Amino acid sequence: MPYISLEAHLPGITGLLEYRKDTAAPIRSLTQVLLRGPSTLSEGERELIATIVSYGNECKFCTAAHTAAADTLLGESNTSQRMKENIVSAPVSEKMKALLEIAALVRQNGKNVTDEAIQKAKKEGATDIEIHDTVLIAALFCLYNRYVDGLATVTPPQPEFYQALADRLVKHGYNRLPQGYDHLKKTATEVK
Amino acid sequence: MPYISLEAHLPGITGLLEYRKDTAAPIRSLTQVLLRGPSTLSEGERELIATIVSYGNECKFCTAAHTAAADTLLGESNTSQRMKENIVSAPVSEKMKALLEIAALVRQNGKNVTDEAIQKAKKEGATDIEIHDTVLIAALFCLYNRYVDGLATVTPPQPEFYQALADRLVKHGYNRLPQGYDHLKKTATEVK
Repeated sequence: MPYISLEAHLPGITGLLEYRKDTAAPIRSLTQVLLRGPSTLSEGERELIATIVSYGNECKFCTAAHTAAADTLLGESNTSQRMKENIVSAPVSEKMKALLEIAALVRQNGKNVTDEAIQKAKKEGATDIEIHDTVLIAALFCLYNRYVDGLATVTPPQPEFYQALADRLVKHGYNRLPQGYDHLKKTATEVK
Repeated sequence: MPYISLEAHLPGITGLLEYRKDTAAPIRSLTQVLLRGPSTLSEGERELIATIVSYGNECKFCTAAHTAAADTLLGESNTSQRMKENIVSAPVSEKMKALLEIAALVRQNGKNVTDEAIQKAKKEGATDIEIHDTVLIAALFCLYNRYVDGLATVTPPQPEFYQALADRLVKHGYNRLPQGYDHLKKTATEVK
């Protein structure tokens, strides 16, 4: 049971984003621009960064949601699975491996990022903005994971819940759905 | 030296917020509403939460900046110093001690927050929204600390730098200064 009073039909982050809308709005905007805005990293690659951080922080809700989003965007579930087992042998580019390693270091503590890890990414072709965005996405999911778990929000056990949420994140992004989209909200939040 | 190319006269977070303004805008908005918006926690108390998290993450830039902001708001530097030494014996209310303990747990990992820590805060009068905001402020500074240190931004050694930055944060808040305020920007970022 959550530590504060949240709407019972809105588990994980979804209830928190409705609880205080004036803090939710900038969190949504930041996520939208970082994960869905113009970038030389694909949306699938950016969801993999969100996934590896959430997985490392053992945040079950965020890991399941962003694994489902990455899998939906990539059209397969092998990459996210193998990345979680071992970044080095995951079926992603050498540049992505280096960026995922940086994200995993940021997750521990920003100070753990080494010059060596950065140089490796640059050698594999990572640009400044790609490195910047990787660090900020990793930092943002350190926020999300702590927000979701720090208030003991509910983690639904059904995989269909996360697939419905991922479908919404892939189709509509991270901004709040406008009024009139209530049928989509239900799809994402009321799967039992 | 930072891992990416940032303006040399803008150390710590200041250069990052100018590097990518479309990600900076929601980060600034979120901080403004959480640390300066209407709340039953004083601005000084909220800066103490930012400070204890930054101190725990060993982020020197954020610790110095938010210690200076808290001290300026409280009108003394004893409280922040003693809080960093030991939350339990710090000269703050029992409710604030309980909230600071929650923030310190969130810093480690959201899952480390215990029902006991929450019940203690509630027993001391903490409301749901105060607990929510404490968790989200702690999570936000886990983002900031990783952003600042993960890209190896510069940490100026001069206390005057942080005092000038704090004066600006206390007077003008976290939103970007509009054009015409360049003299204030200089005060905060070009103290040598």
